Amino acid sequence: MTHRVVIIGGGFGGLYTAKAFRRAPVEVTLIDKRNFHLFQPLLYQVATGALSPGDIASPLRSVLSRQKNARVLLGDAVDLDPERRVIMLAASEGEELTEVPYDSLVVATGSRPVYFGHDDWERCAPGLKSVEDAVAVRHKILFAFEAAERETDPEKRRQWLTFVVVGAGPTGVELAGALGEIANDTLRHDFRSIDPATARILLIDSSPRVLPTYPEELSRKAERSLIRLHTRPLHGVKVSGIDHEGVTIEHGDGSHDHIAARTVIWAAGVQASEFGQALARRLGVTLDRGGRVLVKPDLTVNNHPEIFVIGDLAHSRDEHGQPLPGVAQVAMQQGAWAARAIIARLEGQLRPQPFHYSDRGDLAVIGRGRAVARIGKLRASGLFAWLIWLFVHLMYIVQFSNRLVVFVHWGFLYLTYNRGARLITGDGTEPRDSDVEKPAPAS
Amino acid sequence: MTHRVVIIGGGFGGLYTAKAFRRAPVEVTLIDKRNFHLFQPLLYQVATGALSPGDIASPLRSVLSRQKNARVLLGDAVDLDPERRVIMLAASEGEELTEVPYDSLVVATGSRPVYFGHDDWERCAPGLKSVEDAVAVRHKILFAFEAAERETDPEKRRQWLTFVVVGAGPTGVELAGALGEIANDTLRHDFRSIDPATARILLIDSSPRVLPTYPEELSRKAERSLIRLHTRPLHGVKVSGIDHEGVTIEHGDGSHDHIAARTVIWAAGVQASEFGQALARRLGVTLDRGGRVLVKPDLTVNNHPEIFVIGDLAHSRDEHGQPLPGVAQVAMQQGAWAARAIIARLEGQLRPQPFHYSDRGDLAVIGRGRAVARIGKLRASGLFAWLIWLFVHLMYIVQFSNRLVVFVHWGFLYLTYNRGARLITGDGTEPRDSDVEKPAPAS
Repeated sequence: MTHRVVIIGGGFGGLYTAKAFRRAPVEVTLIDKRNFHLFQPLLYQVATGALSPGDIASPLRSVLSRQKNARVLLGDAVDLDPERRVIMLAASEGEELTEVPYDSLVVATGSRPVYFGHDDWERCAPGLKSVEDAVAVRHKILFAFEAAERETDPEKRRQWLTFVVVGAGPTGVELAGALGEIANDTLRHDFRSIDPATARILLIDSSPRVLPTYPEELSRKAERSLIRLHTRPLHGVKVSGIDHEGVTIEHGDGSHDHIAARTVIWAAGVQASEFGQALARRLGVTLDRGGRVLVKPDLTVNNHPEIFVIGDLAHSRDEHGQPLPGVAQVAMQQGAWAARAIIARLEGQLRPQPFHYSDRGDLAVIGRGRAVARIGKLRASGLFAWLIWLFVHLMYIVQFSNRLVVFVHWGFLYLTYNRGARLITGDGTEPRDSDVEKPAPAS
Repeated sequence: MTHRVVIIGGGFGGLYTAKAFRRAPVEVTLIDKRNFHLFQPLLYQVATGALSPGDIASPLRSVLSRQKNARVLLGDAVDLDPERRVIMLAASEGEELTEVPYDSLVVATGSRPVYFGHDDWERCAPGLKSVEDAVAVRHKILFAFEAAERETDPEKRRQWLTFVVVGAGPTGVELAGALGEIANDTLRHDFRSIDPATARILLIDSSPRVLPTYPEELSRKAERSLIRLHTRPLHGVKVSGIDHEGVTIEHGDGSHDHIAARTVIWAAGVQASEFGQALARRLGVTLDRGGRVLVKPDLTVNNHPEIFVIGDLAHSRDEHGQPLPGVAQVAMQQGAWAARAIIARLEGQLRPQPFHYSDRGDLAVIGRGRAVARIGKLRASGLFAWLIWLFVHLMYIVQFSNRLVVFVHWGFLYLTYNRGARLITGDGTEPRDSDVEKPAPAS
């Protein structure tokens, strides 16, 4: 019988695993809750109205349609039985639990926003992990300008025009930069009672600088670009409270301040998806503080050489003992590596090889023609880094589907500052808590 | 004081009214519930995954941003006081009712689907008037193929693979044609257990032919194109029941049949939006059976020469006494005409002129390279009609925003049959009743 590989999750990790089996004599089943792969690094562009959800999503079936040994199963993996080697999918009402048998298993269910013990903050400060999150954030941002236009009380108007981004990692920096462009350029002529350029955009982080994992020199350059877009980074500041009226911050000296803001966006941290709990329960694997599964150097788990955990769900380390970051590059390389390991084993190579991460660098874009990049030892910023960013994204997006439209959107954005996808959907009123749907983990 | 014109509704009628005031010495306020103008004739392309909502929506503010005498107000017009000449907007919780004063008023709130006394059908058979409708229909269609792939019972599988479109006017025909392309081409290689080409697509109408308002010759040609896409038109058939299991139809001879289908889409009829009721209550105007306001030949209402009703909300007639159809062309011409009438009055021309509709023709597209067109006395079909359709839509869309992306999407669709925007959002399960949001009328 053909060797059955089951992959849970259609993000970067899962999809690259599936594709790496292209010519292998195995039967691949890719399970995901959603019917599409999401290009998450561009999610902030949906949240800021530059792209539509459809522009950064590729149907999993069409990505794998020509790969005859692969099938896609829409389903919610909730549990597994490592003895019988089956995955359990959540059942619809009145139906029986579906079981999917495997010979090898690759778990790549990713991560979701974490609020560090303050789950109530989620209602006021949505994260940015799913299409629904991005649409909710877009709604919040656009609605705030509309409400400010209607508001006559100057203090309330100021509150509507204050935007707080929590977390100055790449997502937070890119989001704050895009917000700066919206306020200063995109909406410049659109309102009659307010001047959108008076909006305050604050980027809060407890680190002493933006992009804390980047070289210091690039952090400084990114900060300068942000300030040029009228965005104010606040360093060394902790968030101690978030509600619908604003954010309470704690300075390094223990003093507190309240920022009155109606729009708060969470880009501060992620934790592993829920399937990690099932692995812990069934396999006795150890989870780190963020819920990530501690994996062996070959990405398998103790006593189960047939089970691989990759991507954001895995806690793995490089040769210097440093934990690998939760980025697409790591997930993609681990996916391809897990597939090769399974194929090698089928061919009789039983000795497990450790996974090596090849660090290609970091890239963050701040605005039109402004980015910072580290590629190996090379550091770049400004227009040159932005062109590298454009080229890298061009390469990856084209790989999945000929997404020329993304570049047409970007071309127009570059020339006109106009963001086409500025839709307030739903009932068009102030976003209520229920508008912010729960983030859907990748599996 | 400057003459204040208030326009309710940012559809084709309202937007063309506003734009026609471009150089006039008036103050224009455009009120809409939504922050965008929707290119409704292409809504079926969102419902069938060819375009994203953002591709066919233009922010009202950016359409009017350079027109300094116009402002946009996001709000829900619920009532008016013709004596004090004010419009009342619905208030948010705890806020006071907002009043907007006018000197001239143009009401262009459009229409919404009507279920002819069977409002419960809406839950099973969504219409196609708003972005939310289109996304709900897209969800239903894509989920049906997913469910069929998982289903093992042949009868249930057949039910998932049966699609019923009710109403064979232009929207129904275009929707059925697109469904035919999805089943036969787009999804061809995507599934492993089912062959999407075995899907049954039925187009039901009580008329003896599809496109009943078109010349007979074009109806025949459209029908032939539909059949070539494996779509089956059923003529002279009435719908007598719709539930989650399917559709009950009544033949001409009074006999009944039940069609087991999980996906039913409503393209059968529209009624005027709710603001018509407010006009009837406050002004004593007469409404027709579909809730449309009977207007005078100059599009104003009795005793109120300062109030114009245009577009789908107006019941107006051509010089032969025939009611004008509810199409974009009529709304646009009436909008421009109402604006000119108001300007003329300000310039001292007090005698009202009757509105004349200049019929430019009809166009319906059935699939790739297949369309039917009537332009004055000219009739065209096939590739030539399709090129006309493309050109006409190019002209209109470019007018609002340089929506080159739509043509990039269409170019790829033409070359590859691939529909990029095939997203199942929400929780990815079977669409429940609550997923189908209430259609939002245009005002």
